[in-house]
Amino acid sequence: MKKYLYIIAILLFSNTVVAQRAPSLNSPEVKPDQRVTFYYYSRTAKSVSLNGEFLKNAEPMIKDTSGVWSVTVGPVKPDIYPYFYTVDNVQISDPNNTHVFANERFKRSILDVSGPLPLVHSLQNVPHGKIDYRYYNSVTLDTLRRVLVYTPPGFNPAGKIKYPVLYLIHGGSDTEETWTKVGRANLIADNLIAAGKATPMIIVMPYGNVRPKEMADFTKDVLNNVVPFIEANYPVIKDSKSRAIAGFSVGGGQTLNIGLTNTDIFAYVASYAPYTATEEFKKNFSSWSPDAKLLNNKLKLFTISVGTDDFLYESVKQNIAMFTEKGLLLKTYIVPGGHSWMNCKLFLASTLQEIFK
Amino acid sequence: MKKYLYIIAILLFSNTVVAQRAPSLNSPEVKPDQRVTFYYYSRTAKSVSLNGEFLKNAEPMIKDTSGVWSVTVGPVKPDIYPYFYTVDNVQISDPNNTHVFANERFKRSILDVSGPLPLVHSLQNVPHGKIDYRYYNSVTLDTLRRVLVYTPPGFNPAGKIKYPVLYLIHGGSDTEETWTKVGRANLIADNLIAAGKATPMIIVMPYGNVRPKEMADFTKDVLNNVVPFIEANYPVIKDSKSRAIAGFSVGGGQTLNIGLTNTDIFAYVASYAPYTATEEFKKNFSSWSPDAKLLNNKLKLFTISVGTDDFLYESVKQNIAMFTEKGLLLKTYIVPGGHSWMNCKLFLASTLQEIFK
Repeated sequence: MKKYLYIIAILLFSNTVVAQRAPSLNSPEVKPDQRVTFYYYSRTAKSVSLNGEFLKNAEPMIKDTSGVWSVTVGPVKPDIYPYFYTVDNVQISDPNNTHVFANERFKRSILDVSGPLPLVHSLQNVPHGKIDYRYYNSVTLDTLRRVLVYTPPGFNPAGKIKYPVLYLIHGGSDTEETWTKVGRANLIADNLIAAGKATPMIIVMPYGNVRPKEMADFTKDVLNNVVPFIEANYPVIKDSKSRAIAGFSVGGGQTLNIGLTNTDIFAYVASYAPYTATEEFKKNFSSWSPDAKLLNNKLKLFTISVGTDDFLYESVKQNIAMFTEKGLLLKTYIVPGGHSWMNCKLFLASTLQEIFK
Repeated sequence: MKKYLYIIAILLFSNTVVAQRAPSLNSPEVKPDQRVTFYYYSRTAKSVSLNGEFLKNAEPMIKDTSGVWSVTVGPVKPDIYPYFYTVDNVQISDPNNTHVFANERFKRSILDVSGPLPLVHSLQNVPHGKIDYRYYNSVTLDTLRRVLVYTPPGFNPAGKIKYPVLYLIHGGSDTEETWTKVGRANLIADNLIAAGKATPMIIVMPYGNVRPKEMADFTKDVLNNVVPFIEANYPVIKDSKSRAIAGFSVGGGQTLNIGLTNTDIFAYVASYAPYTATEEFKKNFSSWSPDAKLLNNKLKLFTISVGTDDFLYESVKQNIAMFTEKGLLLKTYIVPGGHSWMNCKLFLASTLQEIFK
């Protein structure tokens, strides 16, 4: 079988620009005891190492006589982790792994380690929603933009059931696919809905990067284009108590900018490890004097989450203090760990169980 | 602005495993005259070159004093092309390009060159369908498998309109995302439906790799799991004249295997540059004695497409001769070019205008 695959591979690409083809490798290979073996093929590389968010330090990989480099690590705590190889100083994703970190600045791969019990983001045999990939017309940005829309199991766009909507924003340099490809937002929602812990909802994942325009144009795009597009095309409840906004990192800052200045639109604001050193945040909040009582009344949930090892931890604590000082009721969710998508999954799972109840 | 982005980038990843961060680069940069500049950042690389299906030979890239390597090529004929960089012997995708070739054996990037007139796969301001990412339970393969389902503009799952269905299979080592991410099947369908040239239809894109099981198990999976799943969950017309099957390369071989042995199910069979040196094909067709008159009556379209520079061209011609000799009515679509996704887009555009009429 292996020989046959290899022959196919050579045949298929013999008239393309690629002369050398690697053998088909099953990488990464997760063993039942949660140890993981990583493979990479190169006859010419002088050194190959593995970097991943499950490792403290890079692990050197060892070449066998057929040119296959490998290393076994772990046991690795069950979770989903980004990783990459460094081949003679060049950082690359794993050529044999189709699970790619959706990002516009780097290419990494995703390791998915399951344990004896399913995790909140595990693919399980429960009813599954689906993710719509579609386009909307952004008048603000004068272009067609892609948006991903999760609809829950049993969703019927023409049915009588109307749904609440969570708007969910990715981190800096991520894309509209990162919340599903790395954050598994769809599977987290499937699992929590199946367990009766989350209300069936629509989750809208826009693309938050509006460069070279100013970040404030994303706020306008959400309010003037994304929300109206969703409300024109999906059966949704059109009041603030049925709209939530959440985001991570740069998207966590955008969440605060969009959510706290539009509490007539969003009654739930959940910010994960927010990056707030932006012009827009400064403009909105540096001399902000909100009517705290009114805001607390409008907001059904205002939460900020962060890991204690996050490089933004001190900044986030300062923002928590700032919002508290201004009289806002604020729920914090502080966990171990850094500025990672492992934590994002926990933050989202927490939010999904608190909104639209 | 650039400085600000750079600071964010450093901040965002200062507690991750990455120490060195590249500047944000707009790569590839397509100029109005269809020349294209490619960028890559490395202070340590000794040589960087560009390989792409729009080039005859690799183009060396030149480093500037800030560590940014670049090369300008073209004008490039408007189309979508795979490309990659070779950095000191290591093949990598473009870190700054989010358009990734969905594949389980290599990582490449996608160059999208538009011209003065929109192409059949161009994103245009026409009504857009959407792509559902969802899971089905494959009893045959004993696992949940992902499938992509394009639904046309105005699609209503609970409405009175029932749709015909095209089952569309990727090539060897591709994934269920390749027909949309590289082949732009959704945009081709959007454009042809908007122009009144294609009947609104559902397009189902399964994952064709069933290794380590035998390829024949994919045939079973399509017939016993995929088709029933679609027919249970979408408003579709359940007769052979409303079912088509098409595929490229290994998927083109699978199309012949599945389609020609199941003409009660599929009345349209469209095979693109089929790879047929497989056990399943041999078993099905090496001593095949079909009732040609009956088959020709059942098949509303049987077509085989290939490029004259395709490395499978001779093999495809032999298969065309074989099927013709057995009395089958067969429409061929022979074009210039090789075993490429540039040609796949043309083949699909042709098929979409011929089926369900």
